[in-house]
Amino acid sequence: MTSLRTGGPVHPSHAVLRPLGPDEIAITGGFWGERQEVNARATIAHCQEWMERIGWIGNFDRAAAGTIAGSHAGIEFVDSEVYKLLEAMAWELARRPDDELEARYEALVARVAAAQESDGYLHTSFGRDGQPARYSNLEFGHELYCFGHLFQAAVARLRTGHDDLLPQVARRLADHVSEAFGPTGRVGVCGHPEIEMGLVELFRITGELRYLEQAELFIARRGTGTLRGASFGPFAQEYFQDDVPVREAVTMRGHAVRALYLASGALDVADETRDDALADAVALQWASAVARRTYVTGGVGSHHQDEAFGDDFELPPDRAYAETCAGIASVMLSWRLLLESGDERYAELIERTLLNNVLASPREDGRAFYYTNTLHQRMPGAIPDEHELSHRAEASLRAPWFEVSCCPTNVARTLASIGLYFATATGDGVQLHQYGDYEIATTLDAGAVRLRVASGYPFDGGVEVTVTDAPSAEIALRLRVPAWAVGQAALSEDAALVGGAFEVRRTFRAGETLRLELPLTARVTYPDPRIDAVRGDFAVERGPLVLALESVDLPAGWSVNDVEADPATLRADGDVTELSVTRRAPAEASWPYASDRLSGEAERVTARLVPYYSWANRGPSTMRVWIPRVG
Amino acid sequence: MTSLRTGGPVHPSHAVLRPLGPDEIAITGGFWGERQEVNARATIAHCQEWMERIGWIGNFDRAAAGTIAGSHAGIEFVDSEVYKLLEAMAWELARRPDDELEARYEALVARVAAAQESDGYLHTSFGRDGQPARYSNLEFGHELYCFGHLFQAAVARLRTGHDDLLPQVARRLADHVSEAFGPTGRVGVCGHPEIEMGLVELFRITGELRYLEQAELFIARRGTGTLRGASFGPFAQEYFQDDVPVREAVTMRGHAVRALYLASGALDVADETRDDALADAVALQWASAVARRTYVTGGVGSHHQDEAFGDDFELPPDRAYAETCAGIASVMLSWRLLLESGDERYAELIERTLLNNVLASPREDGRAFYYTNTLHQRMPGAIPDEHELSHRAEASLRAPWFEVSCCPTNVARTLASIGLYFATATGDGVQLHQYGDYEIATTLDAGAVRLRVASGYPFDGGVEVTVTDAPSAEIALRLRVPAWAVGQAALSEDAALVGGAFEVRRTFRAGETLRLELPLTARVTYPDPRIDAVRGDFAVERGPLVLALESVDLPAGWSVNDVEADPATLRADGDVTELSVTRRAPAEASWPYASDRLSGEAERVTARLVPYYSWANRGPSTMRVWIPRVG
Repeated sequence: MTSLRTGGPVHPSHAVLRPLGPDEIAITGGFWGERQEVNARATIAHCQEWMERIGWIGNFDRAAAGTIAGSHAGIEFVDSEVYKLLEAMAWELARRPDDELEARYEALVARVAAAQESDGYLHTSFGRDGQPARYSNLEFGHELYCFGHLFQAAVARLRTGHDDLLPQVARRLADHVSEAFGPTGRVGVCGHPEIEMGLVELFRITGELRYLEQAELFIARRGTGTLRGASFGPFAQEYFQDDVPVREAVTMRGHAVRALYLASGALDVADETRDDALADAVALQWASAVARRTYVTGGVGSHHQDEAFGDDFELPPDRAYAETCAGIASVMLSWRLLLESGDERYAELIERTLLNNVLASPREDGRAFYYTNTLHQRMPGAIPDEHELSHRAEASLRAPWFEVSCCPTNVARTLASIGLYFATATGDGVQLHQYGDYEIATTLDAGAVRLRVASGYPFDGGVEVTVTDAPSAEIALRLRVPAWAVGQAALSEDAALVGGAFEVRRTFRAGETLRLELPLTARVTYPDPRIDAVRGDFAVERGPLVLALESVDLPAGWSVNDVEADPATLRADGDVTELSVTRRAPAEASWPYASDRLSGEAERVTARLVPYYSWANRGPSTMRVWIPRVG
Repeated sequence: MTSLRTGGPVHPSHAVLRPLGPDEIAITGGFWGERQEVNARATIAHCQEWMERIGWIGNFDRAAAGTIAGSHAGIEFVDSEVYKLLEAMAWELARRPDDELEARYEALVARVAAAQESDGYLHTSFGRDGQPARYSNLEFGHELYCFGHLFQAAVARLRTGHDDLLPQVARRLADHVSEAFGPTGRVGVCGHPEIEMGLVELFRITGELRYLEQAELFIARRGTGTLRGASFGPFAQEYFQDDVPVREAVTMRGHAVRALYLASGALDVADETRDDALADAVALQWASAVARRTYVTGGVGSHHQDEAFGDDFELPPDRAYAETCAGIASVMLSWRLLLESGDERYAELIERTLLNNVLASPREDGRAFYYTNTLHQRMPGAIPDEHELSHRAEASLRAPWFEVSCCPTNVARTLASIGLYFATATGDGVQLHQYGDYEIATTLDAGAVRLRVASGYPFDGGVEVTVTDAPSAEIALRLRVPAWAVGQAALSEDAALVGGAFEVRRTFRAGETLRLELPLTARVTYPDPRIDAVRGDFAVERGPLVLALESVDLPAGWSVNDVEADPATLRADGDVTELSVTRRAPAEASWPYASDRLSGEAERVTARLVPYYSWANRGPSTMRVWIPRVG
């Protein structure tokens, strides 16, 4: 054991920036504090209650008892949801220790551990008498995917200071994988990447080189066509990212979550093996996808079919899939790239994606979720049954649970650890990437430093950074300035804007405060003309938030489908952002194509815009981010 | 047997217009004659060769031999492809008798008949030892769907003058269905509607009332929630049109082919039972879908996911599914509505859909097909392997065969019988709905009439109708005038434009000719502003053809994704339609959203537009129907 209580979900050995661990940074309240409270109070318990009720946790008990054949609840890979819940609990226990939660955590781990077989294998869907054989369905069985989530949960436990049962289970399981799929084992990969990240982190924290070598093998094998998926047709290999080796690919393609988990794992391998070519390949793929295959919300994946990235500039707002898990995976990849490069553009994309894609998933009360995150809801959503499994929640309001329920537990683990993405350290300084209310206590080369950050962000652009403890030598504090604020952002003292951040390099005294002011004015955003689906439209952003027009803010009976607006009417006053919106009333025609550009009588109202993430919390509504431009 | 050699694929008892049978109307050459030749020479043989090679026809042999369990080739419902091929052969044999084809037809029927069980049941995927039980998967097994196709094939054989083996098989099978699903049988419906049409036609030609009553029962049961489809989530019932009874629905929804086959069957039932309320409901549903859920090509179905109709005005060109079979089903429904109402708007939609959706499916040589018919190809399509099964041909050129290969055989039966959709008769006249080279010989109340129609349509707007035989009394000849031609169409004699057609009501002498001139000028078409996905775009139509811009008509290295055009530059000269096209070159950005509306340097060329149906016959290309408007 080399590094307990160091770093967050990922801790690269050779990165430019060092992540802070849960004993170095903590959110203390405010916008993100509220979300962590809801996550702790509601979401984590909600996930456990559902999985107890529908037998997904019970699968482990039945596996341990030898009665699982024929009685497995849920689809093949529901083990992973239990592991993501365990990861969420581990981070939450570090954030705020709680005996009752600790007891629930340990009891759940014990049930998981009891199902582990003598050779280390652990999965409730495969391998026992009466079940499909182990690794008989690498394409869709997701055994290794589940293992990867278990490894991440174990790493969370280790990084929060506990070397107890789950890490032991993880090491036995990783040893088994290294036997089964190692250099002399089966030449296979999992249909759903994920284990690569888990293995590298487990290597990082245990020092067990075999785990890194196994991850390296999985990355090297990918793109060599070992997977088969006839029902996906000639593009099956692309779906699995098994069409082209990772280091040769030029963009993100196929199933979005798979693509981004794979890229994250590849970057972890590249960091540890100092494989710059592999790291560069991943960075270029992501740059291409960010420039051409990403929604303004940061969401990715524009095909419902196969949950896939679309082609370049194929970004339909109404058919946006923009899966919550893909947003989380995007954050995971951008975070690794930020650590590797120090480039604040990744921090900005993390902010955009968290606020405008990931946060749109949980309902205000933390007990229902969007799986997909459309940018245009054409029909008021149906209200899902609070006691039934839902199917991805397309065309409905947020749903409590899903047949494939990857998103709720992914939200839970992300929110429980969200503060760990807010700042980093180097030998000579601290870098503040995200704003809110939080405290940092870490040690630089020159000595200990403590900071208190206070901000009403994203609703207030003022950020106060108070140095509560500082070494007597010079250090560098960096405060990120978002691209939309460059030229208007002001710091309380002279500082150079270097690489997307104000950098103040000097000796600090305890009690000193830096004040940053970011202009949260509302602004109009236009799409690249190649994004055909939103031609003639504009969006409104305010600070880091993408805003939306929701029908509950329009007169009764209006739908967002029939409106257009002049961007010049955009007004922001205090918390309120408003737009003058015109309702078209085109004559009903029997055929919707004509020689003339149709128009009709118009009514006009002033309508309030709301943060996109908050939509659909006031009952069924229609909603759109991209608004047709008048004229 | 009441009515051999009468009517085409559908022959309602109470309709306003009477369809003509294969001995009353025949295409003699020209545009459609060429397509029938390719269908006869290439497509029909191609379908049979493929289904022999991959064992779909052999399924019947193995079923007859009792060896089918464990050796069934293809998905559950491949029987239906053999039946559609038999229907195509039956119509083709009437169009042009051919001993070799007759022998192939009879041999194939004999193999099918040999697999029929003693109680009339006939399906190669269910019911024998070692197979799933009969009707154990009504949602997706498609047994009744297959039966419906067999009935239609049998009806084609009867309507072309042969009461031989296949009609006998059909009657035994229909008797079985009437037992199994009749008033005292199982209360179920097929997941995929189709049998309703087949049963009504079988009733119409045999007079067996039980078949009509069974169809009526299936229609009445639909929408009562007897189907289950958990993997489709809360919208499963909509997918199957099992959410709302047919007579209560207000639009087309769910899986597009299912929806349109169901509506066609419901209309057949309504005609025979004189159920005007049911007929009106279907007409209203279709009117709503035509006005709000139909592509400019006539294609329907805007979701790849679930092959479904989208919401109102949700018509993305790049993600158009617009399945060939849905286009054919649209023609089937519109044809029934035309017969019931006499309203030429249905004939116009048939023309649009045939020319711009259905005809886009077969490759020029008739040996490869599009399953989906996109309106915007963003990446040059891959070339499918000519010897492998393809998956719906998304992102590829036309493919020779598919895992689910409903479209090729549907194209084959439609083209073999296409002339039967061109004209109708009433007691006092003949109605010409479609133009081309064809001859009509029928009998009106006043006596025999023979017409010869000659036209280079859709490339030449001149239509000559020569009366080669006429009764001595007054009759009415109606010549449809498309909506785009109203005000410019000219007939060689004074005639009133009544209900979308010039009507000449007088006594004709043999040898007389009517000359209709339709203006085939190129025209610009704009979408309803509610179709968000093509805002700011225009399309070009010329006569009945929707045109497209294909990259092979642009300079080397250009893609259609980067162009825009001023509609005022549209020019038509002879066969050539041209547009001045500007290539945008926006600066590459790392993020595709900005405060300014982006533009870039521009190059301009004059590019030829081609009929949409003909695209992708010159190698891989990008293509678009909707062109961004400059400015």
